[in-house]
Amino acid sequence: ENILEAKPIVYRQISVPQPVGKEYCTDSGLVVPSVSYKLHRRLLIMAERLGLSLERRLEMTGVCASQMALTLLGGPNRLTPKNVHQRPTVVLLCGPHVQGAQGVSCGRHLANHEVEVVLFLPNFVKMLESITNELALFSKTGSKQVSTVKDLPDGPVDLVINCLDCHENAFLRDQPWYQAAVNWANQNRAPVLSIDPPVSGQEQAVEAKWSLSLGLPLTLGESAGRVYLCDIGLPRQVFQEVGIMYHSPFGCKFVIPLHPA
Amino acid sequence: ENILEAKPIVYRQISVPQPVGKEYCTDSGLVVPSVSYKLHRRLLIMAERLGLSLERRLEMTGVCASQMALTLLGGPNRLTPKNVHQRPTVVLLCGPHVQGAQGVSCGRHLANHEVEVVLFLPNFVKMLESITNELALFSKTGSKQVSTVKDLPDGPVDLVINCLDCHENAFLRDQPWYQAAVNWANQNRAPVLSIDPPVSGQEQAVEAKWSLSLGLPLTLGESAGRVYLCDIGLPRQVFQEVGIMYHSPFGCKFVIPLHPA
Repeated sequence: ENILEAKPIVYRQISVPQPVGKEYCTDSGLVVPSVSYKLHRRLLIMAERLGLSLERRLEMTGVCASQMALTLLGGPNRLTPKNVHQRPTVVLLCGPHVQGAQGVSCGRHLANHEVEVVLFLPNFVKMLESITNELALFSKTGSKQVSTVKDLPDGPVDLVINCLDCHENAFLRDQPWYQAAVNWANQNRAPVLSIDPPVSGQEQAVEAKWSLSLGLPLTLGESAGRVYLCDIGLPRQVFQEVGIMYHSPFGCKFVIPLHPA
Repeated sequence: ENILEAKPIVYRQISVPQPVGKEYCTDSGLVVPSVSYKLHRRLLIMAERLGLSLERRLEMTGVCASQMALTLLGGPNRLTPKNVHQRPTVVLLCGPHVQGAQGVSCGRHLANHEVEVVLFLPNFVKMLESITNELALFSKTGSKQVSTVKDLPDGPVDLVINCLDCHENAFLRDQPWYQAAVNWANQNRAPVLSIDPPVSGQEQAVEAKWSLSLGLPLTLGESAGRVYLCDIGLPRQVFQEVGIMYHSPFGCKFVIPLHPA
């Protein structure tokens, strides 16, 4: 008979050059170490250098984040032809940075799936090109874009997606539009999903129920809620080039929950 | 008491200017008409004109097609840490056209998920830029690329993904590399997934178990197997501009099965 000897399972398939302490694990027990913002930034710069453009990353992040959001909204139970007259409403709060562009991309894919999307983005004279491109595509969905919180819905919505923060430029938090958006989110009773929130040193102004980290997690604080990890399509060589030994923890999924190890 | 009157469900939410006859329906009964290749082509040209670049579309198509392939491979049952020593093998057969580039993108995302991928693409002196870009990214996964069927696996593999055909240039079918790849696929006992196969007029040289149409289906023949539809991220205005009245049939999914109506 054919008896296969089971090889031991290796749970530590990712190792980073400078461990920053906090480790997570997946549902199946794989260890996913958190990385410093500096290393995460190097990873993304390397990805772009090896040809994985920001445009591609924005597209993939938007698709996968919207898949998570659609699940949070109730998935197949909520989005059926029977419920077409009760479309879920999602408010996206976006700042003027790549994190904001990620939010706009996510909003477009949600709108493509018949979700009622309202996008908040403050007015600026000059915007990042990546934001301008995402906005142009978003506008083709016919969804609403507002530049002041006064034009956001008064009543509770189904989900708020927070992309107000970026990893640098903490001074944005002092600006009136930021404060106003934070106040609106904290007054609305909707649960909050944060996409790509910054490390825990900066306490989140908006408490999240869920947070979605991209590629590898940063060390997130309590106010990030339950942490999920999003595949952003980085091939193995990108990890190798910045000194990370990496095997995918995603299995067949593109978004997975992470638990404190 | 609050008695809500149920509004009637509208099952016909997509209508095309020149119906070509064949209609499909989704699991929930929504009608999805097939379109001519000419209209499908206009849809994609309009998408690019409105800012949805081919690069973006390739990324999204690759993600969603790989999600379907991962499900076909057994999903969470197959891709667990316990099975890491028995990784599934997928052979991608790609021609020198956008359909081939879509296959390479799908292959990269499969490789990112620890699938053993072997990519067949014949050697050409000059390639489409979109293929060159996808190949450069694919090479960063460390997966195998071959240019002759002699270097393809001898034994059965888990899945063959067929991207040999394009919608124009049927003359490619007369070339030796095409014939050799077709013979290899037909001799291997693996089930075949065709991505973006051409209309039924041209009979498929490789019989597919499943076919994945992009955006809206063409009229596919028997040899296309079971038809699935892939969301490729087109906002509603793209459909409007080519005269298609459109509401998403996808619900919360990005790949859905279609049934003959």
